[in-house]
Amino acid sequence: MRVYLDYAATTPIRKEVLEAMRPYLEKDFGNPSSIHSWGQRARKAIDESRAEIAKFLGCQSEEIIFTGGGSEADNLAIHGVIAGLGAKINPHIITSAFEHHAVLKPCEDLEKRGLATVTYIRPNKEGIIAVEKIKKAIRLNTVLVSIMYVNNEIGTIQPIREIGKMIEVENKKRKSIVGSRKAIFFHTDAVQATEYLPMNVDYLHVDMLTIAGHKIGAPKGVGLLYIRKGTPIRAIIHGGEQEKGLRAGTENVPYIVGLTKAIDLIKNANLKNLRDCFIERVIKEIPEVYLNGSKTFRVPHIVNFYFKNIEGESIVLGLDLEGIACSTGSACTSQALEPSHVIMSIFNDHFRAAGSVRFSLSKLTTKAELDFAIEKIKEIVARLREISPYTKEKNEYR
Amino acid sequence: MRVYLDYAATTPIRKEVLEAMRPYLEKDFGNPSSIHSWGQRARKAIDESRAEIAKFLGCQSEEIIFTGGGSEADNLAIHGVIAGLGAKINPHIITSAFEHHAVLKPCEDLEKRGLATVTYIRPNKEGIIAVEKIKKAIRLNTVLVSIMYVNNEIGTIQPIREIGKMIEVENKKRKSIVGSRKAIFFHTDAVQATEYLPMNVDYLHVDMLTIAGHKIGAPKGVGLLYIRKGTPIRAIIHGGEQEKGLRAGTENVPYIVGLTKAIDLIKNANLKNLRDCFIERVIKEIPEVYLNGSKTFRVPHIVNFYFKNIEGESIVLGLDLEGIACSTGSACTSQALEPSHVIMSIFNDHFRAAGSVRFSLSKLTTKAELDFAIEKIKEIVARLREISPYTKEKNEYR
Repeated sequence: MRVYLDYAATTPIRKEVLEAMRPYLEKDFGNPSSIHSWGQRARKAIDESRAEIAKFLGCQSEEIIFTGGGSEADNLAIHGVIAGLGAKINPHIITSAFEHHAVLKPCEDLEKRGLATVTYIRPNKEGIIAVEKIKKAIRLNTVLVSIMYVNNEIGTIQPIREIGKMIEVENKKRKSIVGSRKAIFFHTDAVQATEYLPMNVDYLHVDMLTIAGHKIGAPKGVGLLYIRKGTPIRAIIHGGEQEKGLRAGTENVPYIVGLTKAIDLIKNANLKNLRDCFIERVIKEIPEVYLNGSKTFRVPHIVNFYFKNIEGESIVLGLDLEGIACSTGSACTSQALEPSHVIMSIFNDHFRAAGSVRFSLSKLTTKAELDFAIEKIKEIVARLREISPYTKEKNEYR
Repeated sequence: MRVYLDYAATTPIRKEVLEAMRPYLEKDFGNPSSIHSWGQRARKAIDESRAEIAKFLGCQSEEIIFTGGGSEADNLAIHGVIAGLGAKINPHIITSAFEHHAVLKPCEDLEKRGLATVTYIRPNKEGIIAVEKIKKAIRLNTVLVSIMYVNNEIGTIQPIREIGKMIEVENKKRKSIVGSRKAIFFHTDAVQATEYLPMNVDYLHVDMLTIAGHKIGAPKGVGLLYIRKGTPIRAIIHGGEQEKGLRAGTENVPYIVGLTKAIDLIKNANLKNLRDCFIERVIKEIPEVYLNGSKTFRVPHIVNFYFKNIEGESIVLGLDLEGIACSTGSACTSQALEPSHVIMSIFNDHFRAAGSVRFSLSKLTTKAELDFAIEKIKEIVARLREISPYTKEKNEYR
């Protein structure tokens, strides 16, 4: 039995998605910018995709910019708004300490180059960013808040709607002081929320929102940034006039069509029972295992456990030999060889960061797969603890 | 009969390319950054692709950075090197006036933001950039030269190797003055050259080189930038550590494999005879038609004619109705509704810019297709000239 429990890292392309893409891979190959009929067929596919996704997000078509993936969309939001605001003196950004690196690194880059200052809000012990903490961090030069909808490593849901509403109140206050221009823009990386949580941008009160195709059954290499009309933003890839001049480059028609199909297919699967049963059994049947992050405010598909006194990586490699895929954290940072910045930001505990493992589910996941995984986890944890130096002389190490 | 003569805008995905991609679209879906076996299979595909393309370019694997397309690669070269050089005061860039917008627009962006000054070299009447003109434009603060290998609209070949060698001589002179650090870096956008001209980066004496998949039978949405070791460069998309930290985002495995296959399949097709016969007949059989750009220094697949006293766009739309695809210039700028900056840079003539049409061939092009196209071009040109106000009272308009 081979069991893939790393859907938060990436998902297989859904059959229906591949079918939708096929005509654009095989025969309708025109360049959407060409004015002849070959081009116009491709253009139509993109226009229809945009309209379809606009319905899903509750926005206008022209507010959607297709990108080469979630990371590019996050970079466009952060770098794009700071560049779009122009020569503003020392803009201030608020983000969280456990964002995906596609948000953290652009922020750090802006800091290093002296183009912005950044406040990194730490999550509480439940893995949640408190609205109040963001409110307190707001300064007069704050121009951008970027908070992820769902933490990609531990699966906790962030209060995006509440943050959005709070920012609107702050903006109104500010408007009465400094005039009509909206002052703080709010971005959310919704990459891990897309399939499972409300995505209407007005309901969420967000100005920008990132989606990545390969987390929802579309291919790797396509994503989008929703940008509310009126948001000052500048391209990071300059050239042709594609995507309203906000993202130069010939559009990846097949993948855009595929992303749209994947979004069309979203139906809230009932994963919660499966997940809760998985959590319950792991915690009950294996000693000294702790769930990372809130049990309640959690997407149905991500679970993250701390296995005390074991290296998470050993568990991942051990399970891999048994045909089970999981991960120690974000795949994007797996080669960085650093302990998870997410677990560190919550617990400030190197042992916990090194001993945590993420399991992520999808609609394809079955009870039989999870049962098989639990047995294997049990075996491996027992074996690793037997040979672990920590277990015998715990106190020396903690 | 339907005849596609716009291969310079984009090409269909080759069957063999789609076959090579298929396993990664259908089953091997792992995230290349995942440490389990699903991820490692994907990683292996990328590693092998990189090694294969390195052979083609005569470089080392780690000098290749996969991107979301040619435009992104050009942006990475321009923005990346200027950011990579850090707080250098007022760096100077030399490029040509008829570059693709993916090079021109980043240069203009840097100028606007006061981050660089740029010299735009004008081509001669043959559509060629003279090496001497570049040499003369070099200043002490020149850090980057970016010249396209083949002009995408008119198909003329630029003396990349000669420019590269000249820059090396200049760098040696400078080294003896200011010390060991290499000073001028040389980038070429080789997007329209890839299939037809020498691509060895040492032979060409280039530091950076751009390739776009969809111009050579791979899909839209993948490209690469060759970056010679030692070139100071900074990412424009920040996040995960993919592509040596120079391009964050989960790798588009199927498209990278497809790009590699397309490069593997490159064999110099004998298009020259077909092209020359096409040029000869059009010029002989239609009055007042002129070839734009050198007849000799020209890639086999791009031809561009000036049809006096007619709007190029009318020809494109007329031919489209007859089932023939061609274009007035770069597809990327077709929506900008401006006359071709390429023709303008050579002839500084609005009538010529508005009256020029590009026909581009590929290995798929047949003599029968071109014969059919010639007949239709003749008919349409005759019809348009009959109704054109220019034709009757030419002198008033010229």
